Amino acid sequence: MTPALGVCYYPEHWPEAGWERDAASMAEVGIRIVRIGEFAWSRLEPTPGDLQFDWLIRAMDVLGRHGLKVVFGTPTATPPRWMIDKHPDMLAVDARGQRKGFGSRRHYDFSHLGYRAECQRIVKLLADAIGQHPALSGWQTDNEYGCHGTTYSYSPAALSGFRLWLEQRYGTIEALNEAWGNVFWSMEYNRFDQIELPNLLVCEAAPAHDLDFRRYASDQVAAFNKVQFDILKQARPDLPVIHNFMSRYTEFDHYDVAETLDIASWDSYPLGHLATSNEPDEVKRLYLRQGDPDNAAFHHDLYRTVGHGRWWIMEQQPGPVNWGIFNPDPLPGMARLWAWEAFAHGAEVVSYFRWRQAPFAQEQMHAGLLRPDSEPAPAYHEATQVAEELRATGLAGIAAKGRVGIVFDYQSEWAWEIQPQARGFTHGAHVRAIYAAFRKHGVDIDILSPHTKSFAGYDIVAIPALFAWNETLRTAIAEFEGHLLIGPRSGSKTENFSIPAALGPDLPQNLLAAKVIRVDSVDPQLEVEVKGGGGSVHHWRERIETTAEVVIEDAENWPVLLSQGKLFYLAASGSKALVQRVVDYLIAEADLPTLALPAGVRCRVRDGMRVYVNYGAGPATLTPAADETGYVLGGVDMPAAGVTLARLATAG
Amino acid sequence: MTPALGVCYYPEHWPEAGWERDAASMAEVGIRIVRIGEFAWSRLEPTPGDLQFDWLIRAMDVLGRHGLKVVFGTPTATPPRWMIDKHPDMLAVDARGQRKGFGSRRHYDFSHLGYRAECQRIVKLLADAIGQHPALSGWQTDNEYGCHGTTYSYSPAALSGFRLWLEQRYGTIEALNEAWGNVFWSMEYNRFDQIELPNLLVCEAAPAHDLDFRRYASDQVAAFNKVQFDILKQARPDLPVIHNFMSRYTEFDHYDVAETLDIASWDSYPLGHLATSNEPDEVKRLYLRQGDPDNAAFHHDLYRTVGHGRWWIMEQQPGPVNWGIFNPDPLPGMARLWAWEAFAHGAEVVSYFRWRQAPFAQEQMHAGLLRPDSEPAPAYHEATQVAEELRATGLAGIAAKGRVGIVFDYQSEWAWEIQPQARGFTHGAHVRAIYAAFRKHGVDIDILSPHTKSFAGYDIVAIPALFAWNETLRTAIAEFEGHLLIGPRSGSKTENFSIPAALGPDLPQNLLAAKVIRVDSVDPQLEVEVKGGGGSVHHWRERIETTAEVVIEDAENWPVLLSQGKLFYLAASGSKALVQRVVDYLIAEADLPTLALPAGVRCRVRDGMRVYVNYGAGPATLTPAADETGYVLGGVDMPAAGVTLARLATAG
Amino acid sequence: MTPALGVCYYPEHWPEAGWERDAASMAEVGIRIVRIGEFAWSRLEPTPGDLQFDWLIRAMDVLGRHGLKVVFGTPTATPPRWMIDKHPDMLAVDARGQRKGFGSRRHYDFSHLGYRAECQRIVKLLADAIGQHPALSGWQTDNEYGCHGTTYSYSPAALSGFRLWLEQRYGTIEALNEAWGNVFWSMEYNRFDQIELPNLLVCEAAPAHDLDFRRYASDQVAAFNKVQFDILKQARPDLPVIHNFMSRYTEFDHYDVAETLDIASWDSYPLGHLATSNEPDEVKRLYLRQGDPDNAAFHHDLYRTVGHGRWWIMEQQPGPVNWGIFNPDPLPGMARLWAWEAFAHGAEVVSYFRWRQAPFAQEQMHAGLLRPDSEPAPAYHEATQVAEELRATGLAGIAAKGRVGIVFDYQSEWAWEIQPQARGFTHGAHVRAIYAAFRKHGVDIDILSPHTKSFAGYDIVAIPALFAWNETLRTAIAEFEGHLLIGPRSGSKTENFSIPAALGPDLPQNLLAAKVIRVDSVDPQLEVEVKGGGGSVHHWRERIETTAEVVIEDAENWPVLLSQGKLFYLAASGSKALVQRVVDYLIAEADLPTLALPAGVRCRVRDGMRVYVNYGAGPATLTPAADETGYVLGGVDMPAAGVTLARLATAG
Repeated sequence: MTPALGVCYYPEHWPEAGWERDAASMAEVGIRIVRIGEFAWSRLEPTPGDLQFDWLIRAMDVLGRHGLKVVFGTPTATPPRWMIDKHPDMLAVDARGQRKGFGSRRHYDFSHLGYRAECQRIVKLLADAIGQHPALSGWQTDNEYGCHGTTYSYSPAALSGFRLWLEQRYGTIEALNEAWGNVFWSMEYNRFDQIELPNLLVCEAAPAHDLDFRRYASDQVAAFNKVQFDILKQARPDLPVIHNFMSRYTEFDHYDVAETLDIASWDSYPLGHLATSNEPDEVKRLYLRQGDPDNAAFHHDLYRTVGHGRWWIMEQQPGPVNWGIFNPDPLPGMARLWAWEAFAHGAEVVSYFRWRQAPFAQEQMHAGLLRPDSEPAPAYHEATQVAEELRATGLAGIAAKGRVGIVFDYQSEWAWEIQPQARGFTHGAHVRAIYAAFRKHGVDIDILSPHTKSFAGYDIVAIPALFAWNETLRTAIAEFEGHLLIGPRSGSKTENFSIPAALGPDLPQNLLAAKVIRVDSVDPQLEVEVKGGGGSVHHWRERIETTAEVVIEDAENWPVLLSQGKLFYLAASGSKALVQRVVDYLIAEADLPTLALPAGVRCRVRDGMRVYVNYGAGPATLTPAADETGYVLGGVDMPAAGVTLARLATAG
Repeated sequence: MTPALGVCYYPEHWPEAGWERDAASMAEVGIRIVRIGEFAWSRLEPTPGDLQFDWLIRAMDVLGRHGLKVVFGTPTATPPRWMIDKHPDMLAVDARGQRKGFGSRRHYDFSHLGYRAECQRIVKLLADAIGQHPALSGWQTDNEYGCHGTTYSYSPAALSGFRLWLEQRYGTIEALNEAWGNVFWSMEYNRFDQIELPNLLVCEAAPAHDLDFRRYASDQVAAFNKVQFDILKQARPDLPVIHNFMSRYTEFDHYDVAETLDIASWDSYPLGHLATSNEPDEVKRLYLRQGDPDNAAFHHDLYRTVGHGRWWIMEQQPGPVNWGIFNPDPLPGMARLWAWEAFAHGAEVVSYFRWRQAPFAQEQMHAGLLRPDSEPAPAYHEATQVAEELRATGLAGIAAKGRVGIVFDYQSEWAWEIQPQARGFTHGAHVRAIYAAFRKHGVDIDILSPHTKSFAGYDIVAIPALFAWNETLRTAIAEFEGHLLIGPRSGSKTENFSIPAALGPDLPQNLLAAKVIRVDSVDPQLEVEVKGGGGSVHHWRERIETTAEVVIEDAENWPVLLSQGKLFYLAASGSKALVQRVVDYLIAEADLPTLALPAGVRCRVRDGMRVYVNYGAGPATLTPAADETGYVLGGVDMPAAGVTLARLATAG
Repeated sequence: MTPALGVCYYPEHWPEAGWERDAASMAEVGIRIVRIGEFAWSRLEPTPGDLQFDWLIRAMDVLGRHGLKVVFGTPTATPPRWMIDKHPDMLAVDARGQRKGFGSRRHYDFSHLGYRAECQRIVKLLADAIGQHPALSGWQTDNEYGCHGTTYSYSPAALSGFRLWLEQRYGTIEALNEAWGNVFWSMEYNRFDQIELPNLLVCEAAPAHDLDFRRYASDQVAAFNKVQFDILKQARPDLPVIHNFMSRYTEFDHYDVAETLDIASWDSYPLGHLATSNEPDEVKRLYLRQGDPDNAAFHHDLYRTVGHGRWWIMEQQPGPVNWGIFNPDPLPGMARLWAWEAFAHGAEVVSYFRWRQAPFAQEQMHAGLLRPDSEPAPAYHEATQVAEELRATGLAGIAAKGRVGIVFDYQSEWAWEIQPQARGFTHGAHVRAIYAAFRKHGVDIDILSPHTKSFAGYDIVAIPALFAWNETLRTAIAEFEGHLLIGPRSGSKTENFSIPAALGPDLPQNLLAAKVIRVDSVDPQLEVEVKGGGGSVHHWRERIETTAEVVIEDAENWPVLLSQGKLFYLAASGSKALVQRVVDYLIAEADLPTLALPAGVRCRVRDGMRVYVNYGAGPATLTPAADETGYVLGGVDMPAAGVTLARLATAG
């Protein structure tokens, strides 16, 4: 498949007289996909039942005339004001018990069944009206589920939904009391209708109570999406249904929602993500205008799995945005680099957000490909260049399968938010640290679901800080013949958020004869050096009772890395240096080939080509790899924000 | 006009037997004005309709007998508890939706028309009862509008008022939808009664929505004041109506409120203002017991304009106060210095707060001229000295007109709070930075309203970080023949909070041929050096498309200062050094005379005298200026907290 | 009395089949006391009126068979869910006005009389059912009053209770208005039913209003406890009634609550207390795994007084816990050291929390003597060692009376929270600083109530930062013949939270001829050196008008330490070095004997033995004291976490 550029466009924001010129310009840039519609409900149905789809069809006609394909976003993230008159209780309630108001977006409660029915209605009407339009090439459901903290609502609707969900899960109140450990503080319920939501309590809820609420809330997002998916697939079984996820919004399980999607997409804003990350100041300063060199890639690899192999960038940052605490101007070339990196990781489409900067409303400081005065902004030219380069290089196919797999699990994110035991301890940080350590060596990585059936084909698989095993994963581990790195805290809980009877990491003794008998959690600034080779442990350490070999231990003689055959257990959170050391050790053990990359340079293989990108603030010089036969784009000397494509010997 | 000292006095707090002695002591100090009454409603009307004005008249009699003039403060900032029984919904509602309670002060909602009528009633009754009292010399309306965050209320009264205000402003809902850009996220309304207040939303409101709410709230303060003004002027057309504003409380437009005032006054607490400012720690330490050397002066110059040329200090800090996070003891002499500085800037009255420290209730740790045991506190002696020095020096007249004008605009404060784009970006900080840079050279400055009709008479005018032009200001700019410095972000929006069609700074091309085509906002700690001469840009930079001359550019070749004739455009926020460099450049261009002042020393001219004040923690030595003919008070050697008055050759 | 070890046990959490083994193991460890029952209400009364006490009696039977004595905790801290159905308004309301929910613990409002009656009912039923059980040896009322911020509720029940309490206190509304200074801001009430709670106001309430609300809330805790005490004493006059207090939870007056207790106990978690303290980072790092060397001891000495001489540790940290931001593993030996230190200070019982780590619910990461898999955790062995050492050393008797007394007053904690005047100014910090300075010299200290009738027997008494004198304390001071150190801000208020007519410190002139005429409060980082001998003042300084001798003054000539005969007045908050200097000066003046202790080592005398504990992270060497005749346990060389018992020559 040849990848394509796209753009997000809002014909309803602009005079109809200008649509033609816009479409022509898009085509000139080389754009092939245009997403429209997802905020237009008040123009599609200005008052209840008054359907105004003509303008939409005219807009699609115009785009189609210029050879552009349309992805239509269902408008359910922004119901019009009159909807609140019909369903005043469809507005979500925040954790402090306050009903949220109308006047921005995502003003609905996933648990509100009346609003879910309204979404069903409008999506059906739209599918009927535009489903056969020749320009239509796909659907987007809603927009950015969960954005602005909208996964959770503490409303009466959520409460009654939660009680029903619990009854379905546990059957009897006795089973729930047992599962949650309610005897602990006399928290035992007599009936399901006594159960409350876990907000506004005197102190923390039982962790299983809190976790079940998060599972419930996640399930509502999936159910909400399924309603639209079912209608859209019925209307056009041949067209893909897509949702645009947000990175680092982990309040619901993206794998679950994607069960009713054909393609996963995500909205990539690299600068803001770095600014709000926990990276040290010097890293933030170094990559201020480029973004973290591993963060976008991580999400590319994640959403490739979420999307069952098919994924897009639905919104790509084109310049400074409006929503950061600060909003830097990207380094010239980054709008090109980010697109190329996405394609390298297998993106089918990279769609810039947005066509023209809107001079009004909330996002008026968000750059587009055009300035508000319709002149080209820098990204306009960079997009044009990418389109030309795509044609010139002929990149196609799909992303290469990685040789390393890393399990990322949403439930583990929830679990350690509920019970960090050390402030700031998260699943994702452990996953990303290992990801970055492998990627520095030019290794291609796949992110894996916690329900992965088999690890076959991977040289190394890593599972850090995983909440609880499931049977599928246990089987995959038991059957895996490669090297396996299991990280701190993995398997330290049962599905019901209790400590396993045999204690963590709760693996069969033949795989790993070890029990975590004590946890030491301290301020991350307090480091304990690790013997023989550098690195330090901090934040989290486990005292282990084990018969496995101790490969690394810290200066206080706590084990850090154990091995039992090809299974390795990392018993602590480590500094970057230690994580790198452990990863290097595994790479050596597994005899995995690596590349020597300059600092700031990263790469990924697709379609017989290796795509290099230079995130560094200055130039870098590549060392050609043995499997490369020459350059399709760029060369060994990479400027800042440079892109180089090397052709591989093994390619067809 | 000969300036006078005043004091704030609460006869209702003290036994009547002591009033006579208090009045006699005030007269001994040299006090001429006494403000009373503004917190006394529960004593003036203990139960509804039970008017008890006799004690007040007796108190005024006592004061009058000692030659003291009374300013009577209407008691509307502290309605008695029974008023809440009558109007339970007059209590304001906070942004989280909670009704505020009775038990402190300012417990009313500016939008509540029932309470506004109660204020009309009590003010009329008081005007009738004491309006002709021979000691009466003026009125204060209410007390410190906006203090404790009381400008905004999110109540049903505010909501219905806001809807009505919007209907009056926009006429049709279509016009409002257009002005706010409501199509953006399907935020379009069908009717005015669907509009909500901009609190408790899922994410931010449309900026025009938020700005209109602030305009509405500001208008309510003005309307509230007008009710009292109309009554008081009708009762005594000859007496001034005054309000005591708070510095840095910018939630409402002080210029607008002052349309129904004869004199502006403000309450000056220099130490707390420094402590809560953004100044670096070393500045806070240096001026811990003196206050920022430019802050009080800035407000003097501001309120002189707010008051149409007439202004007072209604409350002057006399010692440590109670409301700071910390409450340092001022350096000996500061209560004198602050008074002198106010007089130098044109104050008619400086009134100390308060006569005697109250041993009870919320402000018991707030110093007075007397200690709680009625012994003189240090400021008692300093006030006595000021009174003597006023007599001895014969200072009179008004403050000299400045040669530099700087525009300060409340609406711009609201706009950048709503949309900072870089955390901490404010209009006021830019204004004050330029103010301080001019003032270090001994230049007299006027603060100008954004509705100033003409800049004639000024050598230099500065307009930094202004939200949007209005026609008056555009005309003033076009007609101005002096040097004009327009600052970053000025004119970057229309009145409806959109980006202008021609982009910012949105001035006619013949004045400034420049467009801001991109904004780069970063953490203020990240500085980019400026070429040739020092200083750095940080926080905010603009990429400019221009044919104007680039006077200064930064190390990354972004333009910093442009010039087109006598119009200069500053395209970035700058370090202190850069702002000083730009100001110095303009001073040189305009050939403006300056003084060489020691660090910590500032000055202002009034009535043919130059008043020097030494904010430094140690002594300073003046260099006599060419236009000075000798010293009326003090001399070239200034101790810490010292005051020197030089007579000017040009004086009459 | 021979001290004993105890443990907290929850038979309802474990299968009945395992109780016997648990009891046998406890006896093997040497445990003699087992606390049970305090979270078991849902098992004792699963539905209203369905009493299920049989299992409890069987559990007590099992424990009794193994020679274990039971302390039964009344289950009133965790009413079952059905109780909320009966009394929906028994849930407390937070300061933001939100009703708290069911699902954790302490979900009740102390002001709710309906719930108080339910507690009376269940306690009576339990006293009837188990009061004569042979294993029963005492009662605990409720659990950790005030934990999780539960002293205050802003509910209708609290409001009506507060109004009644005020009416009883003041008699007439005029008296209340006078006491609170309500004239200040027209806050005068016409009737008691107009008074509101001091939350959600526009700005701060009158301090007397706030203080009275805290007094009211504290009285409700005492009243709540008295209900249970009366029943339990009537049932078994011979058995002690105990409550387990929390350190640093000072929202209610522990002395008052203890008026209906026979024994005070407290729950000691040294690591978390250090982590949340204001100690500098280097101290936190040094004592990360040991706790502050003076904090547990301070509370031991406090609760000895609260308990009228009798006190326990009801919950002793046995390993890492779950509730800290971070939860470090204690240094090996600390579970032993903490127990020994408690015994040295007179503890009758040290009871570890808990027997077995629970694998479920909120505290699953809280260590026990057993791991969740029932294997011994490190503290199991340390407890066994302590039990053996108790037998071997024969320690008995009571803690020696201290030679130094320091007054600690809950009301002063409330007062300075209400009106810090310098952020972070607290009573307790001043008390603890003086405590630590004396204790570094090996001096035995008693903490004294502010209602102490006589200081006879003490060499030195210190009273720092005390809100207001009471007549008892004034008499004790006047009659005291030893050295008296009165600290900054003491006596600076009347009981009604006003400044005394004669100003602070408000002592008779013959005791101390001094008036505080001004307070200087600054950021604690701003220090002023003190002349001649080191140390500095910071945070709080008082300008004094005095005829007393100035012993120490600061570099700016403010008096720091005054003396008049044997009364010393400290007019500032001091650095550690200054507090030590002042304490050393008093020790010298009073000719008090001291010991030379290594850093990190502390000691206390009980029963003719001096118990040394080494809090240091490394070994320490003792210098034998002149009064010691040899070692009963350990010796001069103390390892980290070491304990040494020296026999005293003067012992019987």
